[in-house]
Amino acid sequence: MRLLTAVDQLFLLLESRKQPMHVGGLFLFELPEKANSDFVYQLVKQMQDSDVPPSFPFNQVLEHLIFWKKDKNFDVEHHFHHVALPSPARVRELLMYVSREHGRLLDRAMPLWECHVIEGIQPETDSSPERFALYFKIHHSLVDGIAAMRLVQKSLSQSPNEPVTLPVWSLMTRHRNHVNAILPAERSVRRILKEQISTIKPVFTELLDNFKNHGDDGYVGTFDAPMSILNKRISASRRIAAQSYDIQRFNDIAERLKISKNDVVLAVCGGAIRRYLLSMDALPSKPLIAFVPMSLRTDNSISGNQLSFVLANLGTHLDNPLRRIELIHRSMNNGKRRFRRMNQAQVINYSVIAYAWQGINLATGLFPKKQAFNLIISNVPGSEKPLYWNGARLQSLYPASIVFNGQAMNITLATYLDKIEFCITACSKGLPHVQDMLMLIEEELTLLEKTSKELAFQGITVKDKCAKKTKKLAP
Amino acid sequence: MRLLTAVDQLFLLLESRKQPMHVGGLFLFELPEKANSDFVYQLVKQMQDSDVPPSFPFNQVLEHLIFWKKDKNFDVEHHFHHVALPSPARVRELLMYVSREHGRLLDRAMPLWECHVIEGIQPETDSSPERFALYFKIHHSLVDGIAAMRLVQKSLSQSPNEPVTLPVWSLMTRHRNHVNAILPAERSVRRILKEQISTIKPVFTELLDNFKNHGDDGYVGTFDAPMSILNKRISASRRIAAQSYDIQRFNDIAERLKISKNDVVLAVCGGAIRRYLLSMDALPSKPLIAFVPMSLRTDNSISGNQLSFVLANLGTHLDNPLRRIELIHRSMNNGKRRFRRMNQAQVINYSVIAYAWQGINLATGLFPKKQAFNLIISNVPGSEKPLYWNGARLQSLYPASIVFNGQAMNITLATYLDKIEFCITACSKGLPHVQDMLMLIEEELTLLEKTSKELAFQGITVKDKCAKKTKKLAP
Repeated sequence: MRLLTAVDQLFLLLESRKQPMHVGGLFLFELPEKANSDFVYQLVKQMQDSDVPPSFPFNQVLEHLIFWKKDKNFDVEHHFHHVALPSPARVRELLMYVSREHGRLLDRAMPLWECHVIEGIQPETDSSPERFALYFKIHHSLVDGIAAMRLVQKSLSQSPNEPVTLPVWSLMTRHRNHVNAILPAERSVRRILKEQISTIKPVFTELLDNFKNHGDDGYVGTFDAPMSILNKRISASRRIAAQSYDIQRFNDIAERLKISKNDVVLAVCGGAIRRYLLSMDALPSKPLIAFVPMSLRTDNSISGNQLSFVLANLGTHLDNPLRRIELIHRSMNNGKRRFRRMNQAQVINYSVIAYAWQGINLATGLFPKKQAFNLIISNVPGSEKPLYWNGARLQSLYPASIVFNGQAMNITLATYLDKIEFCITACSKGLPHVQDMLMLIEEELTLLEKTSKELAFQGITVKDKCAKKTKKLAP
Repeated sequence: MRLLTAVDQLFLLLESRKQPMHVGGLFLFELPEKANSDFVYQLVKQMQDSDVPPSFPFNQVLEHLIFWKKDKNFDVEHHFHHVALPSPARVRELLMYVSREHGRLLDRAMPLWECHVIEGIQPETDSSPERFALYFKIHHSLVDGIAAMRLVQKSLSQSPNEPVTLPVWSLMTRHRNHVNAILPAERSVRRILKEQISTIKPVFTELLDNFKNHGDDGYVGTFDAPMSILNKRISASRRIAAQSYDIQRFNDIAERLKISKNDVVLAVCGGAIRRYLLSMDALPSKPLIAFVPMSLRTDNSISGNQLSFVLANLGTHLDNPLRRIELIHRSMNNGKRRFRRMNQAQVINYSVIAYAWQGINLATGLFPKKQAFNLIISNVPGSEKPLYWNGARLQSLYPASIVFNGQAMNITLATYLDKIEFCITACSKGLPHVQDMLMLIEEELTLLEKTSKELAFQGITVKDKCAKKTKKLAP
């Protein structure tokens, strides 16, 4: 038995039928070249018939919302589902299936995860093999999104020839040392309380700071985000939209403008959101603000505990893409300076305060202009090496996240091989046709490629422009 | 806009993540003999592309839990799902899929129904055609189980040659007159309140009556049901088990013993439940009590409003099948005499009182031996004529129902052509392997066939035996 941490509790308390608190990972595989027609069936059967018990944390079940304990009646049928998509099924149909599953609450009487194998997805091109997918869904109180993606990736192989004979949820034993580093450590009540209390000062310092600083529009305060249709109450229905884009295109733009790849990603998101809101005649006159979690660790095996975040001004009020990207670059630089170090508990407590404020707004309508940010845009770890599942090559991986009341859209990204994988999780009732965002991202990316080429030809970079501006402002 | 009735409200209030309040119908079809391989795809496409708006009640959405109003943003993608089962898929795999879907809450931001077309189900025999299924799920606050089954059946055709070009949810216009008779009438607040108040007297008279009558074990009082594993708190996970049995087998037994077919159905259920509980070492020493709703109407087109019910003693404590069937027969006769007429509101209010009692028990453990009944065994209307969907023959229909805290199993039956369709809905966490019930029903049916033949050979009938017993008891 293990006591629930305050963070675990928080994710269970915030959960409601309209607001499930699980994250998901969608992994798209290509059948091996000479695979039998029953390749997926055999893979599934092997997982279903396995008598190896699930490993930690997949064997943990809630006890009175106070403890995690080992589930003694583990029944794989509750957790593992095998379906097919009706022919002809494109990735669009796969995403429809995953959207539905992502909107459904997990059963708290069992360990809080589910695994779906989905077969029958059309080949990418006529000459490539048919595809199947793995959708893994796990409650945020059990592991966070970053750990969830890592856990599944760890269960895959870096070799096309390595047979994988154990189910994903039992595989962890194979990598026990790696996995321990991913998972939250067992902590005493004393330590949890201490950690919580230690967050009070930095969180409130930050909140107070917001009321003092004004001036540069690259500085984003805590309650600077405008109201928008992204910040409505949510329904229980989800839409997951996901697509892969060549990372080289982002790198080229970043290099030409002398800014970071991350700035380019935010500029593309900002531009696409601007187009999406314009199409619905719902663009606020003030710029949208994104909450961008930043990992301070460079070590890939450890995650979660060392998080910081930046509030980025997405410049959605600006029509000129160059001015937008400039603003993003400056606000990111300012933000990074401000929150140099915050631990996860601080980030979460800070978010709770921001959310509480938003809750008051939603209930009373008293401070409709006061909110911390409009959406979360985050990165989860991908892989630089190709991954395989029993010889089937992983083609793409998409991280599906959580949306909240007042936060109806989330964008989560991962890098895999030479692609950036965009995954948008949204409330499908409040934000109709959110899949259009994928096309708008492509349009924005194309525009930035063109603009950056022209600027590079003229010898102009965003870095220089921002540096000049900062100089001018200095006395 | 239409005011929610007290009954609508009740089903919304009772609903929780562990206790969804929708009913479901599973309809299994055979592909037409000369169907193209894309028959189901075309059927689905036609439904998806239809621009005919959904008809009442499929267009009704909740407004602040007070009104039903017409949904102006109807989006078919939220309601209609098309999936396939991975090959090889038997009815078992279909039921696994439906079990999962049946355990999931509907989104209250949209009209409270969903329709799933599931393809890829193996043929029944080598020479018969492949099968596909329609699973229709609708909230009990919108229509009850009987109306739900009727609505879908009305949308089907009695001819294999009639094309069906509209989706199920728009089809109703075709049968507007029939459908009006199925659906609850629009009622004023005054009328609803009057109806509710009128239930108080009969419900309390019945409750008081229970404390007065003792003696004959064929008399079932309101709080005579023993505790059993069927009466535990439920989890959010469901298991649907369903199978068809030849109606002739039930009729033969009924005729030999001179009892009703309904008595035989209850005897088979009672015997199977006895075997199931024995296998788990959980058979109570007192007999289980079933709540059996009885329709007083013979007119098929009108339903719901004229319901009565009987508490049937299932005789699960008796090993001898003949003694069990005798007890069932007598308790049904007594029950029918007692509750000659109760309207639906009375039945529901009565049930609420019984449930409230059970709630006190579960929370406090004060009166563990006081509860009204152990499970609901009910009948919904089927069809005597074969039904078709665009030429595809309906092979079977199974009604999936609701389980509650303290009522972890429900058995609902329908008659279609020459079969009785059994559908068991259960909490899969509290009642593991409930699908074993199907085999136990078959075993019990075989035993009763054998026993009744022997008795008929000796010239003994249950009716006569019961008549003799009643004579003896009379002064």
